[in-house]
Amino acid sequence: MTQKTIEYSPTFHFPVQIYYEDTDFSGVVYHPNFLKYFERAREHVIGADVLNLLWQQQQLGFAVYRTDMLCHDGVEFADIVDVRTRYYFESKYRTVWQQEIWRPNAKKPAVTATIEMVCMNQQRQMAPMPLNLISQLQQQFNQS
Amino acid sequence: MTQKTIEYSPTFHFPVQIYYEDTDFSGVVYHPNFLKYFERAREHVIGADVLNLLWQQQQLGFAVYRTDMLCHDGVEFADIVDVRTRYYFESKYRTVWQQEIWRPNAKKPAVTATIEMVCMNQQRQMAPMPLNLISQLQQQFNQS
Amino acid sequence: MTQKTIEYSPTFHFPVQIYYEDTDFSGVVYHPNFLKYFERAREHVIGADVLNLLWQQQQLGFAVYRTDMLCHDGVEFADIVDVRTRYYFESKYRTVWQQEIWRPNAKKPAVTATIEMVCMNQQRQMAPMPLNLISQLQQQFNQS
Amino acid sequence: MTQKTIEYSPTFHFPVQIYYEDTDFSGVVYHPNFLKYFERAREHVIGADVLNLLWQQQQLGFAVYRTDMLCHDGVEFADIVDVRTRYYFESKYRTVWQQEIWRPNAKKPAVTATIEMVCMNQQRQMAPMPLNLISQLQQQFNQS
Repeated sequence: MTQKTIEYSPTFHFPVQIYYEDTDFSGVVYHPNFLKYFERAREHVIGADVLNLLWQQQQLGFAVYRTDMLCHDGVEFADIVDVRTRYYFESKYRTVWQQEIWRPNAKKPAVTATIEMVCMNQQRQMAPMPLNLISQLQQQFNQS
Repeated sequence: MTQKTIEYSPTFHFPVQIYYEDTDFSGVVYHPNFLKYFERAREHVIGADVLNLLWQQQQLGFAVYRTDMLCHDGVEFADIVDVRTRYYFESKYRTVWQQEIWRPNAKKPAVTATIEMVCMNQQRQMAPMPLNLISQLQQQFNQS
Repeated sequence: MTQKTIEYSPTFHFPVQIYYEDTDFSGVVYHPNFLKYFERAREHVIGADVLNLLWQQQQLGFAVYRTDMLCHDGVEFADIVDVRTRYYFESKYRTVWQQEIWRPNAKKPAVTATIEMVCMNQQRQMAPMPLNLISQLQQQFNQS
Repeated sequence: MTQKTIEYSPTFHFPVQIYYEDTDFSGVVYHPNFLKYFERAREHVIGADVLNLLWQQQQLGFAVYRTDMLCHDGVEFADIVDVRTRYYFESKYRTVWQQEIWRPNAKKPAVTATIEMVCMNQQRQMAPMPLNLISQLQQQFNQS
């Protein structure tokens, strides 16, 4: 019997400052905005320029297929949170991302999420990720 | 052996028109916005005025604890989608919402989600829902 | 001596309900969101389907060139505001919109704005509005 | 005859990266988002912590009274724009901000705006800015 071991990327850190725009009248961050911070962090892992070229030259993009998010704690105006991101390749179509939002000096994450991304063409059909993109990204995996 | 039967609310329908603000450069709705539509729909089920009074007079609100969302299909500018919502009371603290987004004339939903809400006070501690609110909301359950 | 008289459209009314997403922690609507409501109202005047076809079939769209907005009063969660819109054709390239946001039972508008829109192609060069679009829109002018 | 000379702050620079969330299906930044970037930049000039303490301890905040914005050029996904900000004190109630958005290597700004802010208490009545805040901010004026 064998068991598949998931090979995760290193954990990437991305800071996000919380502005007026991020909060609602209850005084804390409006929950859909957490998905924005997770996406910004993923864009920094992959590279916004890489994503832009992929779209313009190969008509490929990453679409969010699933987001499962748990909000444990409120996040407040003027916080600078640490978005922690690691991910793995589930198939040539799909990556799975473990992402967390940490408030300053917190003992545990305020928000945790598992997010699945699939590679799609501009007709929104699944398409395999280009091999050179995969190998380019996997070079990050040994830099932990 | 007994099995607990979940008593769901009727299914509520809420239309949302897709504007420029909802899309991104890939041409379809930016995925965190689906959580906004789900929340708007929940506010219409509970009543924005009810929520406002609850907050102002009893210092209570509903916080999203978990959202598990699946994006099956893209949603486009100028679509008028049907947000379908049903929910049940899991405890006196917690409601669970099954929500879907349907494009016009679609055979299956474009987006599906399960969303858990907990009742909280303004110090973000869990608090039981007021009994009169529960009974007011449960009156909707027999109107299917 | 002659004086040019501006021929305005009738005043259109468009309701917008204020949700959590619209507010910030100061308790009122976050000011850039007013520009969203103005745009939604303009889309309803022109027609989202009309805009969609214009973009898909003629590669033309309306870009905001100038917005001059005055915020006189705060707008609150659960308000259903009335967005009032009238506009005129300044040239074959340009329309000018007078838009206001009225809270329920208000004696004066909470927000007023003058917004200039120019017709552009997908290379973001100015382009004249199609004549059939102009005449279609101007049919609304006599329906006051 | 005398002429009042406006004493401007130095010009502050603040970078903003353009993410998916910032664009719409026309391919460029959705115009209300520029007001968000201007506000982020102002928060960095004043200090988010300063604003937070002002609100929590003195029940004072800055409300946008007027925004006059000109959009000269589209801003695209993956751009890192430079938000340039300078301002002056018009009275003890009011500051006026000249703000611009510059794309990388641009010869002229993509967006320009004049934004007026007034100091308000939590009942949304005008209130004078605290003198220690004014003097704290004016210390920046000689650091050009």
